[in-house]
Amino acid sequence: MKRTPASYLPPITLQDRKEIPIHQQLYDWFRRAITGGQLRPGQRVPSTRNLAAELKTSRMPVLGAFEQLLAEGYLEAFVGAGTYVARSIPDDTLSRPAEKARNGLQETAEKRGPRRLSRRGVALTNLPAQSWLDNLGAFRVSLPALDHFPIGVWSKLVARHSRRPSRGIMAYGGAMGYLPFREAIAEYLGAVRGVRCDASQILVTTGSQQALQLSAQVLLDPRDRVCLEEPGYPSARHAFMMAGAQLVPISVDHDGLNVEEVIRHSRSARALYVTPSHQYPMGTTMSATRRLLLLNWATRSGTWIIEDDYDSEYRFGSRPISSLQGLDTDGRVIYIGTFSKVLFPALRLGYVVVPKDLVAAYFAARDAADVFSSTLYQAALTDFIQEGHFARHIRRMRMLYIDRRKALVNALQIQMGDMTELIGAEAGMHLVALLPPGTDDVEVSRKAAQKGISVMPLSSCYLTTPRRGGLILGYGGVSARQIHDGISKLRMCVEKD
Amino acid sequence: MKRTPASYLPPITLQDRKEIPIHQQLYDWFRRAITGGQLRPGQRVPSTRNLAAELKTSRMPVLGAFEQLLAEGYLEAFVGAGTYVARSIPDDTLSRPAEKARNGLQETAEKRGPRRLSRRGVALTNLPAQSWLDNLGAFRVSLPALDHFPIGVWSKLVARHSRRPSRGIMAYGGAMGYLPFREAIAEYLGAVRGVRCDASQILVTTGSQQALQLSAQVLLDPRDRVCLEEPGYPSARHAFMMAGAQLVPISVDHDGLNVEEVIRHSRSARALYVTPSHQYPMGTTMSATRRLLLLNWATRSGTWIIEDDYDSEYRFGSRPISSLQGLDTDGRVIYIGTFSKVLFPALRLGYVVVPKDLVAAYFAARDAADVFSSTLYQAALTDFIQEGHFARHIRRMRMLYIDRRKALVNALQIQMGDMTELIGAEAGMHLVALLPPGTDDVEVSRKAAQKGISVMPLSSCYLTTPRRGGLILGYGGVSARQIHDGISKLRMCVEKD
Repeated sequence: MKRTPASYLPPITLQDRKEIPIHQQLYDWFRRAITGGQLRPGQRVPSTRNLAAELKTSRMPVLGAFEQLLAEGYLEAFVGAGTYVARSIPDDTLSRPAEKARNGLQETAEKRGPRRLSRRGVALTNLPAQSWLDNLGAFRVSLPALDHFPIGVWSKLVARHSRRPSRGIMAYGGAMGYLPFREAIAEYLGAVRGVRCDASQILVTTGSQQALQLSAQVLLDPRDRVCLEEPGYPSARHAFMMAGAQLVPISVDHDGLNVEEVIRHSRSARALYVTPSHQYPMGTTMSATRRLLLLNWATRSGTWIIEDDYDSEYRFGSRPISSLQGLDTDGRVIYIGTFSKVLFPALRLGYVVVPKDLVAAYFAARDAADVFSSTLYQAALTDFIQEGHFARHIRRMRMLYIDRRKALVNALQIQMGDMTELIGAEAGMHLVALLPPGTDDVEVSRKAAQKGISVMPLSSCYLTTPRRGGLILGYGGVSARQIHDGISKLRMCVEKD
Repeated sequence: MKRTPASYLPPITLQDRKEIPIHQQLYDWFRRAITGGQLRPGQRVPSTRNLAAELKTSRMPVLGAFEQLLAEGYLEAFVGAGTYVARSIPDDTLSRPAEKARNGLQETAEKRGPRRLSRRGVALTNLPAQSWLDNLGAFRVSLPALDHFPIGVWSKLVARHSRRPSRGIMAYGGAMGYLPFREAIAEYLGAVRGVRCDASQILVTTGSQQALQLSAQVLLDPRDRVCLEEPGYPSARHAFMMAGAQLVPISVDHDGLNVEEVIRHSRSARALYVTPSHQYPMGTTMSATRRLLLLNWATRSGTWIIEDDYDSEYRFGSRPISSLQGLDTDGRVIYIGTFSKVLFPALRLGYVVVPKDLVAAYFAARDAADVFSSTLYQAALTDFIQEGHFARHIRRMRMLYIDRRKALVNALQIQMGDMTELIGAEAGMHLVALLPPGTDDVEVSRKAAQKGISVMPLSSCYLTTPRRGGLILGYGGVSARQIHDGISKLRMCVEKD
């Protein structure tokens, strides 16, 4: 082996800065020199004693750096024969293409492989930007009245579990969720939503979106057909796209999803997504007749029904509509709910109620997706429900949202009555204002976003081209004053259009 | 329309129990009678006045129930002509099959469609049960020393953000994560792990598993080939199965993943999963030579490298090994890390560092998967890092785990020295004890689980059949005393085999 004296090393400059210890600077220098090709495989490096002397430093940091470089395989040492750059380091090291490029050799581009994404990765990336979701301004859809949340009570419950945490609060939890929480959810859903289930069927998720994603993964193979409401919830579409499914849009009218259309055209669908209590975004309620027709069809055809009951806590006219799941006698309905709207979105807690024979598959899918949900908030929310704060909060918010809805309808009628037509039942946290025919709702939403107002264009809920544009206006998170100001600004966005 | 007097109604029995209000009982009774076919479409129902009189109740609850039934479309009312069961209710209502079955008609089974799951759903469900993960007993892999976590400091930080939450802590957060947290992670990774990135490339996840799942979804189409270490991390396998990928096992030796084998056999692989700092489960470190070979190959062939750096904070002999990502000059490496092992698993916080041109795709995939991570813990952990608690905790745990590792090695050598052979570098939170040839490690793990001990069979990390069984023993979460007792019990499980 050719001996290369220490003086042949490229110059090492040590910085006097205290933040980077000498051993680290030396390690970094050697690694860069080896991977950059300045030090060649098989080249001898100086002894630690000589290098320390040359650098006018103590021997300790040099020993530390060499130990690390030997451990990682950049250097190799032979007893009595000194230390060398590992001969096994590949000759065409990484920085070489760059070096060659600097030397005018243009091999670089050809030598680099493609940077391919999956088809679903490309499809998701190419979705149009939703700039109206970048701000939390007036009319942000799904945003509840955060300033009316009983934060004092809540933070005490959080502190209770955080200060003296049980082992369960810190260690690995079950993929299905924290059992007392699941029991509280089962009880609540049975009493208030007419859902027929026990705690063993409840999987706690990080919100309704994860429930959708897991359902898509468990139920759908690539290219399987899934029926969706048109217009419908855009994020549900994204979850099904991730699973590689084919989307079949089904029209919606004043009775909700057009079940007759489903039965006529969608014999081969593997699953169907529906928001029967309060259709998203149009706000209609599915009639009892259609519910029964849909369930009969699903049972006969072997189609899974995914029921998204995202905001049924807030129904102002009559009592909440009972769930589709409660009518199902064949275990065909997967029922999804969330606490994002009733409590607050950053809680990241939702749930899915699954037929008993699907529990094992959902469990495995959750385990493979992200193992389990953080336990602290699950425990705090269990107490919040058990101690009655939850029911009280819903009652208070129902009153508040009735007022906010009235204020919004009022402001729209007074300020924009000439250019909008309101639709949507007296329920939930949003309504739809149809715009004059020919108005580009995406353009209006973009302009509004620039003014700090978050309105969603109705057309973003369509797979096909809608006959008429509109705006989806959330009223959960806006005060009467913000409503008044917001609508003034919104009027300008439509006028200028 | 045929008039049916009220007396033709099946009997309604109201319960005197206070828990269920009368209007709810009535609503439930009518809905059941209609969906069950006891009340037929078009059948007239009594007036609210008559029904109230008959039931000896006030008229209010009857009105409430009817209002709800009308709203949901079970009943229909005609001005001056009374109230009827909606004629549009389908004739073959849901409970009919059951009824027919009772009548001896055996159409039921044939009329029900199949209950198909997706192929990945079936594959995941059929994975063997991992009963050793059902308990948190001695040697549970990946479990840190929870009782040594500075819970006082931590709960103060949690309370700080929980008591007076900013709007950001409660509302919708960004899919990439809480910005100050991402900045803290970028700084930490640059300083300690040699990762080259800025905060814009960091996506906060609910743990390393979600980072794996998102990577699989973004990078892999169904049937794409992905190379994995053999033996390797089982949950990584599950994430790739969810994406429909084909798994290509690559052998592991004392220098880590056999990169020569990758280059020879895997030209068409789309991605490669690797644990270079501390191979899971064998504990070896990938040599510098192989790192450079692997990166060169990845660049030329256009293969993505997924680097899982799950426990590199704990390296006892030398300083932590620098990441593969830091050597990569072509943006080929996706780098994954987690706080589950350094803090605690139920925190549900991890991260993935993605090449800049993949940020948009990961963002979209996260949005479609579960939108964003809960913000409270992200904010608390940011403070924990910035205020120096994080670095201090790692230093303390490193000392503790050195001791625990020594105690475990000691106990194994004294009590099971005749039946085990230990492998794994002085790093991390687990080691592997090979069992005598021919021992069924799954059987040993099952027996141990029955005694409350959680050891993972080495064979569960193999896709193929391993030459020799072994046990993966975590030592993060066990005290010296638990180690001694645990190994005594474990010896019995192996002996009896």
